[in-house]
Amino acid sequence: MTINVIKIGGNVIDNEAKLQQFIKSFASLKEQKILVHGGGKIATKIAADLKIETKMVDGRRITDEPMREVVTMVYGGKVSKYIVSSLQQNGCNAIGLSGADAGVILAQKRPVKEIDYGFVGDIKSVNAGFIESLLVQNITPVFAPLSFDPEHGILNTNADTQASEVARALSGNHKVNLIYCFEKKGVLLDPEDDDSVIPQLNPEKYEKFKSEGVIYAGMIPKLDNAFAAVKAGVNKVIICEADDLNAAIESGNAGTSISLF
Amino acid sequence: MTINVIKIGGNVIDNEAKLQQFIKSFASLKEQKILVHGGGKIATKIAADLKIETKMVDGRRITDEPMREVVTMVYGGKVSKYIVSSLQQNGCNAIGLSGADAGVILAQKRPVKEIDYGFVGDIKSVNAGFIESLLVQNITPVFAPLSFDPEHGILNTNADTQASEVARALSGNHKVNLIYCFEKKGVLLDPEDDDSVIPQLNPEKYEKFKSEGVIYAGMIPKLDNAFAAVKAGVNKVIICEADDLNAAIESGNAGTSISLF
Repeated sequence: MTINVIKIGGNVIDNEAKLQQFIKSFASLKEQKILVHGGGKIATKIAADLKIETKMVDGRRITDEPMREVVTMVYGGKVSKYIVSSLQQNGCNAIGLSGADAGVILAQKRPVKEIDYGFVGDIKSVNAGFIESLLVQNITPVFAPLSFDPEHGILNTNADTQASEVARALSGNHKVNLIYCFEKKGVLLDPEDDDSVIPQLNPEKYEKFKSEGVIYAGMIPKLDNAFAAVKAGVNKVIICEADDLNAAIESGNAGTSISLF
Repeated sequence: MTINVIKIGGNVIDNEAKLQQFIKSFASLKEQKILVHGGGKIATKIAADLKIETKMVDGRRITDEPMREVVTMVYGGKVSKYIVSSLQQNGCNAIGLSGADAGVILAQKRPVKEIDYGFVGDIKSVNAGFIESLLVQNITPVFAPLSFDPEHGILNTNADTQASEVARALSGNHKVNLIYCFEKKGVLLDPEDDDSVIPQLNPEKYEKFKSEGVIYAGMIPKLDNAFAAVKAGVNKVIICEADDLNAAIESGNAGTSISLF
């Protein structure tokens, strides 16, 4: 079967109207689908309300024990259950999962090198069989960015990476598309010009744009993840605006499409 | 198959050492099992930290919109994922569920009469087929006390009632035992004497103890729930201390056993 693994980022989740619009689009997709969500901005806000300081290094959250409790309840509770409930209200039979649930995403706590990220997980394995058992029942998995380490428990995990790992795990037996939805129209030639979307990227073009400085900063780890996924057997990766989800999947007419050739 | 539906109350969840002990006992049970947990004390504490006032009427939480967000993230996130993760660490392949997940527990928002309880749900149906599909995969469902109303979304639901409804839904096709674990040794003849456990209650004895004032206050709704369950086809209801879970199930030598005869 064809499976679309769709990641929705924090700037959409944080905007009630945009999120509701996205949920409607997602629920209406006809092929099998899986959602991976973030929620970092909401976690930062709840942490502040609880007088817990948010520490970030290179855009990554330092997850000490109090912050682990915050991300567990925000990603796994507040955001996950809101999305699942809204999807149900739109006719999509969703189920919210962390990596601990049915042991579906196993990870190991990141070793401490220069920086101690705390309870942050690097994914070791995804239980594709359990995900397939849900899909065949027409149940749509919704993943919070939380993985599970048998030694350390729940770990905070980057949602882009989690989406990529889920897509890769399923690509052995299925045609899998990985779609990163965010607040821009795609990968832009000019970050100031929303109409300058690069429609298609392959490894050669990517290297060229990187060497010219057209693609830089936060877009590089996202694209590295995307190319790692297509190299590992994922059919196609699309980076697009949340509003353009249906157009990107159904007509291929939106966002930036990433493939090997 | 025999299925044990076990409810664990707030005073145990609130105590790290007692909860860990309970999790070990629960994980070691050999028959099929389902856990239903509360978490009210932790919700009250997190609400206070977030400057959200907790209002209770007759021991029931008034669930306005801010309180719904708190119970969703505390029951569905913090408590659920902690229990699931701890069960996984003890070799029990658990999955955390709210009623919205896979639409497993449908409810309707309680109609406003003298009191407006807010987003509180009265359960209408439990999807036994989905629960069975997990059990046959040796996956142990862990229910947060949250149900789902297609009109109003996630609803706060009494955990005792939810456990009873889950047990009843499964009792059509299975031998189901319902075990309420709390901080006392069972239903006591004398609330001051922990060794005065009533070993067995049937409807006749229950009426007698009620009329004599031996059984009163908060124990009455709990026992009404228990008798409703056995009348609806649940094999047996046991009320026992969390520490005595294994003894109560395996030898029948602990707690108060409730049956029709």
